[in-house]
Amino acid sequence: MSSIGNKPLVGIVMGSDSDLKVMKEAVEALEEFGVKAEILVASAHRTPERAARYAETAEARGLEVLIAGAGLAAHLPGVLAAFTLLPVIGVPLQSGALQGWDSLLAIAQMPPGVPVATVAVNGAKNAGLLAVQMLGGKYPELREAFKGYKQKMARQVEEKDAKLGEPRPVF
Amino acid sequence: MSSIGNKPLVGIVMGSDSDLKVMKEAVEALEEFGVKAEILVASAHRTPERAARYAETAEARGLEVLIAGAGLAAHLPGVLAAFTLLPVIGVPLQSGALQGWDSLLAIAQMPPGVPVATVAVNGAKNAGLLAVQMLGGKYPELREAFKGYKQKMARQVEEKDAKLGEPRPVF
Amino acid sequence: MSSIGNKPLVGIVMGSDSDLKVMKEAVEALEEFGVKAEILVASAHRTPERAARYAETAEARGLEVLIAGAGLAAHLPGVLAAFTLLPVIGVPLQSGALQGWDSLLAIAQMPPGVPVATVAVNGAKNAGLLAVQMLGGKYPELREAFKGYKQKMARQVEEKDAKLGEPRPVF
Amino acid sequence: MSSIGNKPLVGIVMGSDSDLKVMKEAVEALEEFGVKAEILVASAHRTPERAARYAETAEARGLEVLIAGAGLAAHLPGVLAAFTLLPVIGVPLQSGALQGWDSLLAIAQMPPGVPVATVAVNGAKNAGLLAVQMLGGKYPELREAFKGYKQKMARQVEEKDAKLGEPRPVF
Amino acid sequence: MSSIGNKPLVGIVMGSDSDLKVMKEAVEALEEFGVKAEILVASAHRTPERAARYAETAEARGLEVLIAGAGLAAHLPGVLAAFTLLPVIGVPLQSGALQGWDSLLAIAQMPPGVPVATVAVNGAKNAGLLAVQMLGGKYPELREAFKGYKQKMARQVEEKDAKLGEPRPVF
Amino acid sequence: MSSIGNKPLVGIVMGSDSDLKVMKEAVEALEEFGVKAEILVASAHRTPERAARYAETAEARGLEVLIAGAGLAAHLPGVLAAFTLLPVIGVPLQSGALQGWDSLLAIAQMPPGVPVATVAVNGAKNAGLLAVQMLGGKYPELREAFKGYKQKMARQVEEKDAKLGEPRPVF
Amino acid sequence: MSSIGNKPLVGIVMGSDSDLKVMKEAVEALEEFGVKAEILVASAHRTPERAARYAETAEARGLEVLIAGAGLAAHLPGVLAAFTLLPVIGVPLQSGALQGWDSLLAIAQMPPGVPVATVAVNGAKNAGLLAVQMLGGKYPELREAFKGYKQKMARQVEEKDAKLGEPRPVF
Amino acid sequence: MSSIGNKPLVGIVMGSDSDLKVMKEAVEALEEFGVKAEILVASAHRTPERAARYAETAEARGLEVLIAGAGLAAHLPGVLAAFTLLPVIGVPLQSGALQGWDSLLAIAQMPPGVPVATVAVNGAKNAGLLAVQMLGGKYPELREAFKGYKQKMARQVEEKDAKLGEPRPVF
Repeated sequence: MSSIGNKPLVGIVMGSDSDLKVMKEAVEALEEFGVKAEILVASAHRTPERAARYAETAEARGLEVLIAGAGLAAHLPGVLAAFTLLPVIGVPLQSGALQGWDSLLAIAQMPPGVPVATVAVNGAKNAGLLAVQMLGGKYPELREAFKGYKQKMARQVEEKDAKLGEPRPVF
Repeated sequence: MSSIGNKPLVGIVMGSDSDLKVMKEAVEALEEFGVKAEILVASAHRTPERAARYAETAEARGLEVLIAGAGLAAHLPGVLAAFTLLPVIGVPLQSGALQGWDSLLAIAQMPPGVPVATVAVNGAKNAGLLAVQMLGGKYPELREAFKGYKQKMARQVEEKDAKLGEPRPVF
Repeated sequence: MSSIGNKPLVGIVMGSDSDLKVMKEAVEALEEFGVKAEILVASAHRTPERAARYAETAEARGLEVLIAGAGLAAHLPGVLAAFTLLPVIGVPLQSGALQGWDSLLAIAQMPPGVPVATVAVNGAKNAGLLAVQMLGGKYPELREAFKGYKQKMARQVEEKDAKLGEPRPVF
Repeated sequence: MSSIGNKPLVGIVMGSDSDLKVMKEAVEALEEFGVKAEILVASAHRTPERAARYAETAEARGLEVLIAGAGLAAHLPGVLAAFTLLPVIGVPLQSGALQGWDSLLAIAQMPPGVPVATVAVNGAKNAGLLAVQMLGGKYPELREAFKGYKQKMARQVEEKDAKLGEPRPVF
Repeated sequence: MSSIGNKPLVGIVMGSDSDLKVMKEAVEALEEFGVKAEILVASAHRTPERAARYAETAEARGLEVLIAGAGLAAHLPGVLAAFTLLPVIGVPLQSGALQGWDSLLAIAQMPPGVPVATVAVNGAKNAGLLAVQMLGGKYPELREAFKGYKQKMARQVEEKDAKLGEPRPVF
Repeated sequence: MSSIGNKPLVGIVMGSDSDLKVMKEAVEALEEFGVKAEILVASAHRTPERAARYAETAEARGLEVLIAGAGLAAHLPGVLAAFTLLPVIGVPLQSGALQGWDSLLAIAQMPPGVPVATVAVNGAKNAGLLAVQMLGGKYPELREAFKGYKQKMARQVEEKDAKLGEPRPVF
Repeated sequence: MSSIGNKPLVGIVMGSDSDLKVMKEAVEALEEFGVKAEILVASAHRTPERAARYAETAEARGLEVLIAGAGLAAHLPGVLAAFTLLPVIGVPLQSGALQGWDSLLAIAQMPPGVPVATVAVNGAKNAGLLAVQMLGGKYPELREAFKGYKQKMARQVEEKDAKLGEPRPVF
Repeated sequence: MSSIGNKPLVGIVMGSDSDLKVMKEAVEALEEFGVKAEILVASAHRTPERAARYAETAEARGLEVLIAGAGLAAHLPGVLAAFTLLPVIGVPLQSGALQGWDSLLAIAQMPPGVPVATVAVNGAKNAGLLAVQMLGGKYPELREAFKGYKQKMARQVEEKDAKLGEPRPVF
């Protein structure tokens, strides 16, 4: 698909490059809609100022949505949200003994005033799609493209059904 | 604050009017930014077609974000998301014996392809603020207003600090 | 066992063909009683209208029980229940980081008015057996067959006991 | 509504009369459809033989569905299921420190071979409705009545919506 | 060690022979103290009468403690406890998606009047040791032997410590 | 009931006198069988040596079973078990924000080698009854009395049933 | 007790003055040892720069330990830890629907490299005591005082025991 | 790095040598700062007196911080804390069916009066770092070294970022 403009509209941040194996699903989802993303490794705890500065400057540099993935006591999405006016999507990552229960709660349970849009544990793909939906208000071609995406998903489900063997239920 | 246009940009849906005592915080948050919202009582299980039709027609009627609050096996946000191209924000409501653990998981753990932006259990206020952030891409005045909102929140924290009694830490 | 009539009495629905590796245990349990089942891949979120239409037409097409398996924020059983008068059995599937806690709650905690008969996580076999029990009111031969099934299960337990090595407890 | 025959079709069992304050919602749901229920206080642990005998004789005495409510390590539904060919609906009751998590798991997680149709914690109303749906295969008038019940529920949701104050969304 | 009498004092019951791989640790713990155990495969749900009869006759046949291991909605220990005057030790087994949370709650949370002495998930060894402690009141040689067992355990810990490499802490 | 000897057979330990409101149910259960208990306030953390000494001397002073109730990170039962050869029954107490989940796990999940017989959260009554069952091997009159206790419990259940109003199920 | 120097050694930070009702127990615990504390209301999300600056300057201003209390997705302790070299003690506060499970995980599960010393949910008193223990390395009088504190706690337990009524166990 | 003195300042205790594979991360973290640690295998339940004596003598032998790792019903950190005036850091270990939920609660939820500084499940590295921070008050060179450690961590994050491929975000 052709790109929406020439520069990244979405910033995807993660605390370690090892998170990329999950978070790349967000990149791929965005690419499917021609939305450019920039990827950053920055840590809420190990490079807090860098994370803060990234969030503070994100809007001025043309980003419109931030996505942050984090495991354990996942503070990164909340820290970005504290420093930006952009909507922030948080992806709880499955990591360590508690398997993502910790990151889910540490992201979803943000206190009043500073929201983070939380998706499922390891739900990076949905984070990308949600960003597309958010951008759709300003970029109507994305809304149209999302319509096509939904139709494609529906067809895929129907194709899986068709492969189950005859006779198929008719209704 | 003056309104962003004359018609609702956000649709707030809940399964019962009893959910309004929490969900009205979303309305109030939107009002603080001059964003009009329409409120609907519709149930994913008791009026599924009505819920679906609402979601299907939401975009054409000018809505840009949907917010849905639900308790227990909270399906409403996901059902709306299935029928619309708009971003859907889900508010897990605390209800019944399991206190919101059920609704949090039933909303946050959406499968790939159909995202719901989940906020905290009973986090209706943040749902409203997140909607404002989502709208900010298209309505720059909302971004500016959100900046003011953040500054006001910061001042309130500092005022609470100031009331703690002397001497205050100086740093 | 000979069939109960010539057409399916039970509809088994799942969101993806990958769920079939668990859900086929429901099919097998029904087959053991000669109950025909039709299998459908349909998604509450990706093909919501198809799922709804399937549920709406199920009774008229001669189905008497629906079984739905779903993982994560498992909405499929509840969505089917919203659109049918038939009893719906929900099978929470173990999937993703939270291992079935999410699907168990998203199915079992249905709100008042729209019940789903929930079985254990991955309990597809019991879903099939429960369907047989439900059908037993109308098809007395199934009740008789279930009696035999229970006796067979008991014998299997006793055979396992017998294999443990002498002396066996006598009581 | 006029009764379905003159004798109870559903047996409702609970371990203590104090459970009746929740379990009566099952009775009321059945009454709404003219289905007679008999209520029994019997304990899986304190009167195990009585519970077993009740389940063993239930079918011969004309019952077609059993409903059992239990809290804590809720064994009653499973014990009844062990001794009957009828479908058993289990209602986890909220009781004690763990608030129903224990009873939910102790009922829903039944091992293969002996299903219990589990509803939500304190979901006695849905237990009654599920019994009605199960009986609907044999008693078509119940299916018809359930259709009316669904329509009534839908109307009630719409009435709640109508009361929210003008203007209402039109779609 | 020489046996305490010639016949089994402890009955170990499990629902399936596949549980033996964990439950044999109870047998081995008892053997270490010369306590004979009989093993039975019986199911609370698939052979409920057999399980009940075993429990009812256990005391008369000379057993003094029962141990029962079960997974999922683990009813076996509670069912045995309902039918015997002997103390019953329950071993929650790790099985299925919920990893033993279900069996732990289904055993530990027994209602007032019918206790089950619960040990850790998969804690079959401790079940055997607890049985030895219970028997120690009547068989003082077991108490003496347990003293030796504790000393051996302490020595093993100290030996593990000694192997860590010099210098060892002196205190 | 007449006493079993003249001195306490059971030691009941708790960390604070405020725990007595729950733990007295253990005392009362024992009294119902004429079993004398001594009560001690001692803390695993605040008076660790006193708790240890109590456990170490318990057997020599004629005690045959220890019961310990504790909340939060409940170490008391395990600490007593470390210092005695007697069986120790642990009662997880509901206390603080986590409502007993913490104390249940901190008592039930004892490591191999040092068992604690765990009862339900706040299950002090069952702790007393379990102690009676443990003592029953040595004091046959207790076993006889427990038989009566079980019959009384059964009668109470039946009386509750009888009060439900005519007609009662006959089976 | 006389003060350790004239200025605060411990900084106690919380997101809202409403947290003070729990957090004042930390102040009181410190006061009991003559340790001065300064209290600050600052939010990780609403005043992130203020929180960061406080942590960054804490050491230079003479503080030696930081204590932070937070509820929900409790990021405050971790954010302070990111900006200081001082040890940070985190107090999970019980707040909202999830009762402190969220704050416990969001504080305890800090990723490698940036530790937070976590105490129990609402465990502000222990936070204060832990700070005293940490300071004890440099201020030996605190270690001595803590010895007295432990003795006082032990006496209080023994006094509670003494009040239980004769005869008291002698051991 | 050169050592802080010639003798161990930190005592690291674990119940079994098998815990060393996790706990050695604490040793390594301390070594990175030149802090000597002594390692001990001692069990709260199998060698309770040895554990107690170790804790009681730790201060006199020159230790300044204790670290204890334990799984399951993890009592070791709390038992050490009961017998020492030194700060105790507890490391919940992932072990057995419940994956560390048990050890986390059994360590973090210590009752008022006896704190344990809890780190993440398997968070042994952070335990070592926290000990360094605690020692920093008395040994200023450690504080300086920790500053360097933080800078190194930040650089490592930035290096991971740099490796992601051009163009990198500039801000």
